[in-house]
Amino acid sequence: MPKYVYDFTEGNKDLKDLLGGKGANLAEMTNLGLPVPPGFTITSAACRYYLDHEAMPEGLDEEVGRYLSALEREMGRRLGQPDDPLLVSVRSGAKFSMPGMMETVLNIGLNDESVHGLAERSGNERFAWDSYRRLIQMFGKTVLDIEGDLFETAIDEAKEAKGVESDLDLETDDFKGLVQTYKKIVRENAGREFPTDPREQMDLAIKAVFGSWNAPRAILYRRQERIPADLGTAVNIVAMVFGNLGMDSGTGVAFTRDPASGQQGVYGDYLQNAQGEDVVAGIRSTVPLADLEQIDKRSYDELLQIMETLENHYRDLCDIEFTIESGKLWMLQTRVGKRTAAAAFRIAVQLVDQNLIDADEAVRRVTGDQLAQLMFPRFGEIADDVKTITAGMGASPGAAVGKAVFTPGRAVELADDGEDVILLRRETSPDDLNGMIAARGILTSRGGKTSHAAVVARGMGKTCVCGAEELDIDVRARQATAPGDVTIKEGDVISIDGTTGAVYLGEVAVVDSPVVQYFEGALSAAGGDELVTSVDRLMRHADSRRRLAVRANADNGEDAARARRFGAQGIGLCRTEHMFLGERRQYVEDLILAETRDDRRAALQALEPLQKQDFKEIFEAMDGLPVTIRLIDPPLHEFLPDLTDLTVKVATGDASADDERLLEAVRRLHEQNPMLGLRGVRLGVVIPGLFGMQVRAIAEAAAEVREAGREPHAEIMIPLVGAVQELEFIREEAEKVLAEVGVEALIGTMIELPRAAMTAGQIAEAAEFFSFGTNDLTQTTWGFSRDDVESAFFGRYLELGIFGVSPFETLDVDGVGRLVRIAVEEGRATRPDLKLGICGEHGGDPDSVHFFHEVGLDYVSCSPFRIPVARLEAGRAAIKSKG
Amino acid sequence: MPKYVYDFTEGNKDLKDLLGGKGANLAEMTNLGLPVPPGFTITSAACRYYLDHEAMPEGLDEEVGRYLSALEREMGRRLGQPDDPLLVSVRSGAKFSMPGMMETVLNIGLNDESVHGLAERSGNERFAWDSYRRLIQMFGKTVLDIEGDLFETAIDEAKEAKGVESDLDLETDDFKGLVQTYKKIVRENAGREFPTDPREQMDLAIKAVFGSWNAPRAILYRRQERIPADLGTAVNIVAMVFGNLGMDSGTGVAFTRDPASGQQGVYGDYLQNAQGEDVVAGIRSTVPLADLEQIDKRSYDELLQIMETLENHYRDLCDIEFTIESGKLWMLQTRVGKRTAAAAFRIAVQLVDQNLIDADEAVRRVTGDQLAQLMFPRFGEIADDVKTITAGMGASPGAAVGKAVFTPGRAVELADDGEDVILLRRETSPDDLNGMIAARGILTSRGGKTSHAAVVARGMGKTCVCGAEELDIDVRARQATAPGDVTIKEGDVISIDGTTGAVYLGEVAVVDSPVVQYFEGALSAAGGDELVTSVDRLMRHADSRRRLAVRANADNGEDAARARRFGAQGIGLCRTEHMFLGERRQYVEDLILAETRDDRRAALQALEPLQKQDFKEIFEAMDGLPVTIRLIDPPLHEFLPDLTDLTVKVATGDASADDERLLEAVRRLHEQNPMLGLRGVRLGVVIPGLFGMQVRAIAEAAAEVREAGREPHAEIMIPLVGAVQELEFIREEAEKVLAEVGVEALIGTMIELPRAAMTAGQIAEAAEFFSFGTNDLTQTTWGFSRDDVESAFFGRYLELGIFGVSPFETLDVDGVGRLVRIAVEEGRATRPDLKLGICGEHGGDPDSVHFFHEVGLDYVSCSPFRIPVARLEAGRAAIKSKG
Repeated sequence: MPKYVYDFTEGNKDLKDLLGGKGANLAEMTNLGLPVPPGFTITSAACRYYLDHEAMPEGLDEEVGRYLSALEREMGRRLGQPDDPLLVSVRSGAKFSMPGMMETVLNIGLNDESVHGLAERSGNERFAWDSYRRLIQMFGKTVLDIEGDLFETAIDEAKEAKGVESDLDLETDDFKGLVQTYKKIVRENAGREFPTDPREQMDLAIKAVFGSWNAPRAILYRRQERIPADLGTAVNIVAMVFGNLGMDSGTGVAFTRDPASGQQGVYGDYLQNAQGEDVVAGIRSTVPLADLEQIDKRSYDELLQIMETLENHYRDLCDIEFTIESGKLWMLQTRVGKRTAAAAFRIAVQLVDQNLIDADEAVRRVTGDQLAQLMFPRFGEIADDVKTITAGMGASPGAAVGKAVFTPGRAVELADDGEDVILLRRETSPDDLNGMIAARGILTSRGGKTSHAAVVARGMGKTCVCGAEELDIDVRARQATAPGDVTIKEGDVISIDGTTGAVYLGEVAVVDSPVVQYFEGALSAAGGDELVTSVDRLMRHADSRRRLAVRANADNGEDAARARRFGAQGIGLCRTEHMFLGERRQYVEDLILAETRDDRRAALQALEPLQKQDFKEIFEAMDGLPVTIRLIDPPLHEFLPDLTDLTVKVATGDASADDERLLEAVRRLHEQNPMLGLRGVRLGVVIPGLFGMQVRAIAEAAAEVREAGREPHAEIMIPLVGAVQELEFIREEAEKVLAEVGVEALIGTMIELPRAAMTAGQIAEAAEFFSFGTNDLTQTTWGFSRDDVESAFFGRYLELGIFGVSPFETLDVDGVGRLVRIAVEEGRATRPDLKLGICGEHGGDPDSVHFFHEVGLDYVSCSPFRIPVARLEAGRAAIKSKG
Repeated sequence: MPKYVYDFTEGNKDLKDLLGGKGANLAEMTNLGLPVPPGFTITSAACRYYLDHEAMPEGLDEEVGRYLSALEREMGRRLGQPDDPLLVSVRSGAKFSMPGMMETVLNIGLNDESVHGLAERSGNERFAWDSYRRLIQMFGKTVLDIEGDLFETAIDEAKEAKGVESDLDLETDDFKGLVQTYKKIVRENAGREFPTDPREQMDLAIKAVFGSWNAPRAILYRRQERIPADLGTAVNIVAMVFGNLGMDSGTGVAFTRDPASGQQGVYGDYLQNAQGEDVVAGIRSTVPLADLEQIDKRSYDELLQIMETLENHYRDLCDIEFTIESGKLWMLQTRVGKRTAAAAFRIAVQLVDQNLIDADEAVRRVTGDQLAQLMFPRFGEIADDVKTITAGMGASPGAAVGKAVFTPGRAVELADDGEDVILLRRETSPDDLNGMIAARGILTSRGGKTSHAAVVARGMGKTCVCGAEELDIDVRARQATAPGDVTIKEGDVISIDGTTGAVYLGEVAVVDSPVVQYFEGALSAAGGDELVTSVDRLMRHADSRRRLAVRANADNGEDAARARRFGAQGIGLCRTEHMFLGERRQYVEDLILAETRDDRRAALQALEPLQKQDFKEIFEAMDGLPVTIRLIDPPLHEFLPDLTDLTVKVATGDASADDERLLEAVRRLHEQNPMLGLRGVRLGVVIPGLFGMQVRAIAEAAAEVREAGREPHAEIMIPLVGAVQELEFIREEAEKVLAEVGVEALIGTMIELPRAAMTAGQIAEAAEFFSFGTNDLTQTTWGFSRDDVESAFFGRYLELGIFGVSPFETLDVDGVGRLVRIAVEEGRATRPDLKLGICGEHGGDPDSVHFFHEVGLDYVSCSPFRIPVARLEAGRAAIKSKG
């Protein structure tokens, strides 16, 4: 049997896989000599076993018993000992932090007898009975699955009966009465008595924590955060300390730096005479941590000392949960703290300057996703008709504009209709998560920067303003009021600034972020903006480290020029079909309807000069850099009207003779599965002259640009090749045209069909480069098209965990990735100097970039806006692979 | 430099790859001491070099020169030597026989000087000038690409001017005139003089033969016969012998057995005073070979002696081309002869009985394609309104009924419209090939069993009657007349019997072939029919040798029972969606339109008993054998009306309220690419209860059949799985239902997506069997759907040789096959006892069966009618793999 239990003295911070983040860090702090309540951790391996087998591993019971005994010996009292009970908390702790997602039960060990012992030992009978009712409430809700409102209602009734408003006004007898009421609620709703055996309480709580791994809100959070579904959670059993023993007790959270800006200083919140949950839930308003100096200077000084120790030890921003029990400071948790994207860049650079980390480590510590957040636009000028209503805390930066909604359900509804929405809540809870995901931004009237709303929004990179206390939010009336007779009704457009905390009624125009302005070259890195300087330093370092080149997907000169400013080292995908739209559509229609060779030739000849002009502009913008041009890919009938629409038009007599002729062509070209039909290289094979025309336009454009003294590097890319014979056929035609015009160009192919990957060794004989079309390759490898399935069943698949993340977003390494790997190996075996790139949308996805680095591609290509992200991640991948 | 030239004394019959069939067999006969004119062969490797590089290999010229000199020394005269010219033929000879497909030039070495030498030496001036004009004609057409009609017209004009009808009536001076005319034709049409240098003639002819490998008709023939496109052809340079030196000369073809029946005896045709081409082309009518005994007994006896030698040497039916030059017999060619399917089975068994070959070899010598031909229906009773018009030779057996057409173009046209056609021609030429492919049967008025029409039709397994001389075919009038004032007009239905040679006006009913009756158990192998006995013996031997089991694709009890009679060892694919058609469609519509859980449950409950009944019938028919049932696969909207039709109906106001409701559902479910949409396992995941209902119907059917004392073996197959998680999800539901009903069943999956193959090792963890769905796997691997592309571009792809054969017909080993191989290896690595089968249409395709044997599957599954074919080929594959 593996070891399933670790005392805090046995673990360390590197055992997160096994002990979870919380357990590993509690062990680390214990070993640093910091004041951590004693306890032990049951590993995530036990959880996985439990979830797989629906039973605890054999022997675990005894192992837990041994560790509990040791804990009891250390504390000098037994769990639930009537005269002096040891109480413990049972808390989840997964490898990745999942705030508010998992279950916790406090005060385990209390029952009708030990409550008296606790009262006596603490000298606080009210506290003892309050703790007892809290246990029954948490246990009932968490372990026995009883609706939490039943308990809340009971306490509200008790307050009403007594004519008071706050829990603080309830007295011992009220809590005694509540304990009875709560037990009745348990009996009636769970079909069993509240268990009074302390060990049974603990064991049931452990199972509940294990089971909570698969609670819907946890699944949803993991999906959003891309946390693997099969990790499981560890469970921490910790001796209870109490922040609610009186005004010399309290609880708080702290950051070693400002998680929004990265500034060093004293950041955090403190709440006197309260348990930790009260702070995180944002139910009662906290005081700034700095105020603790007045309240309890000794504890304050000790805390600051510990924070310094932790930051130097972890060499990073830490966040901390602590409790002061009757003037004694206890550390309940620490972890490397979440931070905003801007803070991540600043902190990384600051730590380099403090010589705590090196530049490689700094680049490791920022992510492409964070960089992408920094590139979001911000608010510009405030127009006259826009009203500044109020301000809260800027809890997660960004600029969000949308219609106000007051329930998560409505947020999802409107978002599904394509509307931008801002979710307004008094405070958020894990149950609001789907609404938070659907919203552009979140605005709360209560809670600080460490409230659920703030923490989750930062994690998602979603704009959030919290604690806007002047707002009076009325969910039932679906409106909010603010000073000055302002009313926000559902559907009113509001704008929120996640940096300043400002809230506006009306739409505020947004402008480019300074980071984008920096990439555009409009803002200098030396200009004094600390964020821009930090980004600049880390980007330079990432660029110096990366092996992957980064190219852009761009179809015109303007996009190409922008991409180049963003750092593109060429064009990896220029789609020519976009050049067939607009007024040129007529020529394509002519081409399709051509009945004679001459008609067809005329249509092609009309298109050629237009295409040539497009290519010239791109070659000019990309002077000296490679430009990969893909010959026309989509089915031609995409350029014709819709079959059903046209059929109705003709059937209802609204059609002209031309329409009827058109309908015939549409019918003839109609395909059951156009994605699997006449497209890509097949068009080139079947329609004489089509690809030849495109190659000629490319060649002549290159020749003219060369004449003008520039340096065009054309790479001609044939789409949808499945067999080398197809490529050879087109290659022959293309080479003839190139020779006629006197231009050299690489000729290569997309690898976007499984067969192309399987026969890459053959295809490489006729291809000078491969570019992986991972969108199409994903479609055919999985046998589903993006259009058809995302709405039809992806939601359900994500819900069930069949996908952790859509394979159209992050490359499916096991399936699609394996094909890529095979094609890379076998293509290079045939042609060692084969150029290899990827031009699917995965080219700008951080996880996928790491895979492409690892598999040995030469470049990734992505949309211009994702280029900095790809550059950064390519650097990170190179640093990571060095180990 | 490799050796590119082989003298006949250097080669042997095992060098077909290099020397081609003709060259290898000429060498073999030479070494057997048979009278073969001296010569040498230029290898197919030289041809491949020439085609790849568009130039002859360096040094080949000298090598040919050396061999030519040796030939000249042996013959005692030089090529084109003015006073006594050595003449040679230059003939193609590929590895596989391609009758009439390739180019030949005779009489190389003649020019204005040597023609006199030939006249003098042969003592026949007319012959010499006729030979010369033949050279210019063949050379002009073949080497210089001049339209053949120009020469034909010139000779017709010469006959007209002279007032004669036959070439035989033309005299020396006429041929001298024709030589001048022909030279003028060459000059005017080729832009050059006819080359008078004999070596130049020879070299140009060699290049022309090489080039003819890629002539359109050769490409088409290879495609039809599945001959690889990259083999190239060898060229044979042979000293000329002449069958047209007078009435003691002649030329003929012979078979060592009847190629239609397999009977031993004297079969063949002979034509006095003619060159070989005249026989094959069927231009002049031949006499039966037996008549040669009267004409030239010495040569006849020698020929019979040689035929016996050859059959014993090759241990097979041989066909032979020979020429008698002034009473001296020369062997020009031999090869293992083509034969009808029936003859193949008979001959193989006869040779076993003659102890020439063993039973393994006999099974090697028959093919599944031949067996399939024997299973074609035959003519039954001739109805009163059907008129027997005439009879020709039964040249390729079978019974064909169709509309009469007189041109290949019209045959293709009508066949494309789905009509059955019979192609009527005086004789056929390679230019007719596309029409012959399109036709159900071929009827000619001229030529024997060795004419082009007969040979090609037999090769294709296409019904052919030839030499129906009473028919007067008028292509221009598009009609044929027969004795008794019968006229066949284009479009009239006729019936032809390829066995008896009978031709009927009207439609004759067809009946099962005796072979099918034998498989059905209606005809005993001991009944005296030699064909049935032969088939029976070879099938038994194949069954005893094969490792692959053979199952059937069958969806109902009747098909299942039939399949079992045909030898099926189980059902490999029972499609359940067919059970959703007909009157049950309503329930499916209800299911799709269900708005509440209860509605959906009601629809499912209505379907369940119907499905159960279907399954019971199949289990009963397959008592004791495995039955693999695939849960519903196609998109549900396939059970709803067409979107466009319904939209028109609603738009034009013809629709009911129900229709409008239906339209909403159709729109909601409409998919751009249904093949890549919500189908297969995705339906099971998304629609609660659907798969559960099906599993329950299967389980209850099995339970009831078991109750009744039978032995059902259900295997539940989940379609379109791409990830093991999908399978696990469904498996859980299915296992629950099975446990409830108390029935055991294997649960497995289709492997029909590239991702399933790539992750087969994972999927095998949740699958007890894999069945390769090679139709869908081909679609996704290549990225084209069968429906959409076969019409759109497959024709062009086949034409260009991008495909040798449709990958939907014969498994694409390099792409799809590689995925199959990976899945087999990795699936078995996870689960060594994993059952592996294939249920795509490739399961009944001979080549594919060999691949499935080789890759290690447990069974193939195919349509009932293909089961004997699969059994035979599985046996052949096992014998072949033993070596």
